[in-house]
Amino acid sequence: MTLETPAAQTDTAALLERIATLEARLAQVESAPAMGIEDRLSMVVFSGDFDKTMAALIIATGAAAMGLEVSMFFTFWGLSVVKKQKVFEGKNVFEKGFTAMLPAGANKLGLSKLNFFGAGTAMMHKLMKDHNVTTPAELVQMAQDLGVRMVVCDMSRELLGVRDDELIGGLELGGVATFMGDAARSKVSLFI
Amino acid sequence: MTLETPAAQTDTAALLERIATLEARLAQVESAPAMGIEDRLSMVVFSGDFDKTMAALIIATGAAAMGLEVSMFFTFWGLSVVKKQKVFEGKNVFEKGFTAMLPAGANKLGLSKLNFFGAGTAMMHKLMKDHNVTTPAELVQMAQDLGVRMVVCDMSRELLGVRDDELIGGLELGGVATFMGDAARSKVSLFI
Amino acid sequence: MTLETPAAQTDTAALLERIATLEARLAQVESAPAMGIEDRLSMVVFSGDFDKTMAALIIATGAAAMGLEVSMFFTFWGLSVVKKQKVFEGKNVFEKGFTAMLPAGANKLGLSKLNFFGAGTAMMHKLMKDHNVTTPAELVQMAQDLGVRMVVCDMSRELLGVRDDELIGGLELGGVATFMGDAARSKVSLFI
Repeated sequence: MTLETPAAQTDTAALLERIATLEARLAQVESAPAMGIEDRLSMVVFSGDFDKTMAALIIATGAAAMGLEVSMFFTFWGLSVVKKQKVFEGKNVFEKGFTAMLPAGANKLGLSKLNFFGAGTAMMHKLMKDHNVTTPAELVQMAQDLGVRMVVCDMSRELLGVRDDELIGGLELGGVATFMGDAARSKVSLFI
Repeated sequence: MTLETPAAQTDTAALLERIATLEARLAQVESAPAMGIEDRLSMVVFSGDFDKTMAALIIATGAAAMGLEVSMFFTFWGLSVVKKQKVFEGKNVFEKGFTAMLPAGANKLGLSKLNFFGAGTAMMHKLMKDHNVTTPAELVQMAQDLGVRMVVCDMSRELLGVRDDELIGGLELGGVATFMGDAARSKVSLFI
Repeated sequence: MTLETPAAQTDTAALLERIATLEARLAQVESAPAMGIEDRLSMVVFSGDFDKTMAALIIATGAAAMGLEVSMFFTFWGLSVVKKQKVFEGKNVFEKGFTAMLPAGANKLGLSKLNFFGAGTAMMHKLMKDHNVTTPAELVQMAQDLGVRMVVCDMSRELLGVRDDELIGGLELGGVATFMGDAARSKVSLFI
């Protein structure tokens, strides 16, 4: 552009400034689409029921296989899903009570309905085996293999007296801030 | 703009190029706001409880009436919501068992609490009738009339031995990919 | 910029027009990032179980403390969370029945599992006291102090015959439109 007068020079400088500002602002918008929302799924696994846990694990592994980042937060009864054994040693009477009553492991969970003291659950296991459905414990392993982030609720662990040697490997400890941090950047959040 | 020298010509061309690039980038951002997130609600209807199903259907029809696209995924106990009858013929003993034990139809569901072998549920039906609350079966019909997408979980259907002639019309079959596909473009996703 | 001919003048005007349009469009995109999605959490508190209510309140207060706007919608059994007392006067037989059977207050709720007619719940209260965990009623107060929006489902209130003088202060009345309105602008929505 040919600029003959100081006034014209100012005009061009202002124009270039406006375009540079536009470029910077647009880069900002482009780099933070949807306020930092990512291709991510976050779920609270609260229930510890066999059927709901299956739903959670099938959604989690399915989403991970589709390429989404997935975070699972195991809290309260959901801690049973990521247990590998029961340890009674060194626990107080309440902790021993919960340890005795709560299942230790994804394949030990009971149905939320029609459990009939385990008969309904056994029937469901038989049905699932006949249909070649993956077991919950296998789905937990598959989720870990797919890189699903697995966080155990620290407060629930303390409250129910769950010891680290009762839990499977590869878990993180966290709290509500861990969940909300992931959920706030997720396209989908579920409480199961 | 008067351009007297080759250098000035280049300057103008560069300027126009920058503006054209800005326009294209902005159009891209505008056409994909929020990473493809739409005015959409997706829900997993898992429970099959009368009360939770009512909540799911009221939220679904309410959202649809407000102009949102709505998708409902009926899985596990939730299959009972979209059944119209029980068929025992040609089923194995397990499938017959589930068919016998599980309700067939949105109006046959039991309360998740205070069911008292059906007395609490009957009391709730009476209460709802007195208050002119729409029945679950009517809400299912209303949801279909409002264009709510209704998907039945294929794996649950197979597992529980639910036959097509046991289900109401207008349903699609799908899996976790169907749900995640809709949920990932939804403003709101719920597991009920 | 020196403009000697009418054609050059038009060119510059067109250029300035394009830049002004870009600025306006970008401002539009910047002011409505992610289709109006805010740093907000919306939850339906449906269950009325002690354990699930604790989870809901811990997530709500945690999110509020992290700076998110939080909305809680108390519906169905969840109405018990925001009750302060039972009133039987002037109610019909059904309403009296529900009033008698349903707990009145966040600290009166029972566990969803292992309740054992109250023994499990008492054990959980003892455990929580030993671990200095805040009680549900204190969390409700904390949520209100943190500015959490608390909405009571109008239809549930009518259906279960809950009177205003049975509820704590600081609540709004609303319906599915109130929930969907908040959920549709929330980063995270949960059904608990």
